[in-house]
Amino acid sequence: MNLPLPLPIIAITMGDPAGIGPEICLEALCSERLVAICQPLIFGDAAVLARVAAITEKPMPKAEVRWEAFERNGAPFTGPGIVDFDAMRDQALTPGKVHAATGRAAYRYIESAIASALEGRVAAVATGPIHKEALHAAGVKFPGHTEIFATLTQAPRTCMMLTAEMITCSLVTTHIGLREVAARLSVERIFEVIQMTAETMKLLRGREPRLIVTGLNPHAGEHGLFGEGEEERFIIPAIEQARALGVQIEGPLPGDTAFLPHRVSATDAYVCMYHDQGLIPLKMLAFETALNMTLGLPIIRTSVDHGTALDIAWQGKARSQSLEEAILLAAKLSGFRNYPAA
Amino acid sequence: MNLPLPLPIIAITMGDPAGIGPEICLEALCSERLVAICQPLIFGDAAVLARVAAITEKPMPKAEVRWEAFERNGAPFTGPGIVDFDAMRDQALTPGKVHAATGRAAYRYIESAIASALEGRVAAVATGPIHKEALHAAGVKFPGHTEIFATLTQAPRTCMMLTAEMITCSLVTTHIGLREVAARLSVERIFEVIQMTAETMKLLRGREPRLIVTGLNPHAGEHGLFGEGEEERFIIPAIEQARALGVQIEGPLPGDTAFLPHRVSATDAYVCMYHDQGLIPLKMLAFETALNMTLGLPIIRTSVDHGTALDIAWQGKARSQSLEEAILLAAKLSGFRNYPAA
Repeated sequence: MNLPLPLPIIAITMGDPAGIGPEICLEALCSERLVAICQPLIFGDAAVLARVAAITEKPMPKAEVRWEAFERNGAPFTGPGIVDFDAMRDQALTPGKVHAATGRAAYRYIESAIASALEGRVAAVATGPIHKEALHAAGVKFPGHTEIFATLTQAPRTCMMLTAEMITCSLVTTHIGLREVAARLSVERIFEVIQMTAETMKLLRGREPRLIVTGLNPHAGEHGLFGEGEEERFIIPAIEQARALGVQIEGPLPGDTAFLPHRVSATDAYVCMYHDQGLIPLKMLAFETALNMTLGLPIIRTSVDHGTALDIAWQGKARSQSLEEAILLAAKLSGFRNYPAA
Repeated sequence: MNLPLPLPIIAITMGDPAGIGPEICLEALCSERLVAICQPLIFGDAAVLARVAAITEKPMPKAEVRWEAFERNGAPFTGPGIVDFDAMRDQALTPGKVHAATGRAAYRYIESAIASALEGRVAAVATGPIHKEALHAAGVKFPGHTEIFATLTQAPRTCMMLTAEMITCSLVTTHIGLREVAARLSVERIFEVIQMTAETMKLLRGREPRLIVTGLNPHAGEHGLFGEGEEERFIIPAIEQARALGVQIEGPLPGDTAFLPHRVSATDAYVCMYHDQGLIPLKMLAFETALNMTLGLPIIRTSVDHGTALDIAWQGKARSQSLEEAILLAAKLSGFRNYPAA
């Protein structure tokens, strides 16, 4: 007798309570294609979600469980629901205004979702938008989700990858000043980002992916004319190491011609040297639909690629498309791993 | 009695003889809308043009004059023609192979065109593609056209602007290593680029232009979280100086959201901090049609925004659209200046 496999449980962190996170979580849970392939659980505050649901006229999930109970026994229901932290109780909360309390709450959802994933209680984590200044006000000193996940899972090497149907970019360096980028490059770092990207894209595409690596300097250094030979010293050796392992990879290509339309359509993923080099083209081509993934973690993590959009928070204007895609991708990736049923 | 005004003479440098320059010059001179508004003169080698014309089956201009004669007396004809340097005489010339002799010839066309413009013998210069390695082999140590024009015209301040119908970007820094960019920023430099860009766009648009200035660091520094406050120290004061003079300007915007489609369509020009920040979006949106201008010169200079395309040189495959647009823009800008008739 074949019992149906349980659907993977995806933890969806609600993001900053004062941003658009709550409303896009509520809307995402209405997605039929989503609940068909996973059990989505919002890690957040039920009271906040209820307020947002009333204002934006979105349905509330019927099931909820307190975090303390979930931590012990998992969810006592199937289908979509809320894992309730009640973290904003007795806290002032104004839509569009972030502060220490909202940052602290957002961080609690994240650290609890990570713990649940490490224990196998959830199959993956999809994260809603947080606000860095609120996190900082709460004493959380990470520059973003990627760094929180890397630290709390003790991952020795990670990278940020942004992905959409048209274009995917992994970043060798992320949230650092532009003046620090060149000094952070090394053959090892570039190689590991190539390798993590190639592995993930092979899973997603079901075949060997085609990668492009960009150069650092104008015209990819033009044979040493610009820069200090970073292409020759770091990027080319990393590409050669990856090629020796069978990775299909081209580069280093000049940033300004790497993203011409005919190249984008023939490329599964780009490995870029710094934040804006990858994110300028990615957001131009796929602002609404791009997702953020952290590669190299012991758990699966996907995320929206937009911010808290405070100016339109709690107004029902925000679109949940990016979050839905993040949850779907998390569910899809879960299928490639063994995970304990909750 | 109203005599017809003479058409402005536009010097078109042929670029590297071994690249696609000769064939796109020949094709551009067939453009009816071009010869209707200017007298285009190719500064190049008549013998090379004749060889390329025979191979690619393009018509040769009927009129030509030796450079020495042109330098003394100008062109003894109206309509399109060639100013012949015969610089490749007795030199081996293989299509697609650049070397010291082709670099030397390309440089001669440029320096002579600049001299002609400074003397008022031509109204403007539109430049064909050169090859930096050939220039270097010839002992010409400039990284590109922009630097040649700035030096030979003794311009105290210049900037490179790339322009197309959809998008225009000026660059605060250009052909330097990425690691040097931050150290080259100053309030003065950013302000002068804003000012030159605003002036030129006002001429081209016939109204006050709307500008966007990008930040240097990820998220435009996110209030000092990334980088060393370059946005606050250099970019914001320069923006405020420009605003005080009435320039309509927004920024510093994060690079990765500055070029979203709705912003591009509402913006006349971007002021970008470094080469790839401006050229990635520009080439994505307008690779075929973008032009390169040098602002701040005492003469008018426009250029194609592509290279010598050695792999397809002398095959008749190259498109002259970018060069035609460069010549048309040069002619249009000539109309805004007084220039002596040749």
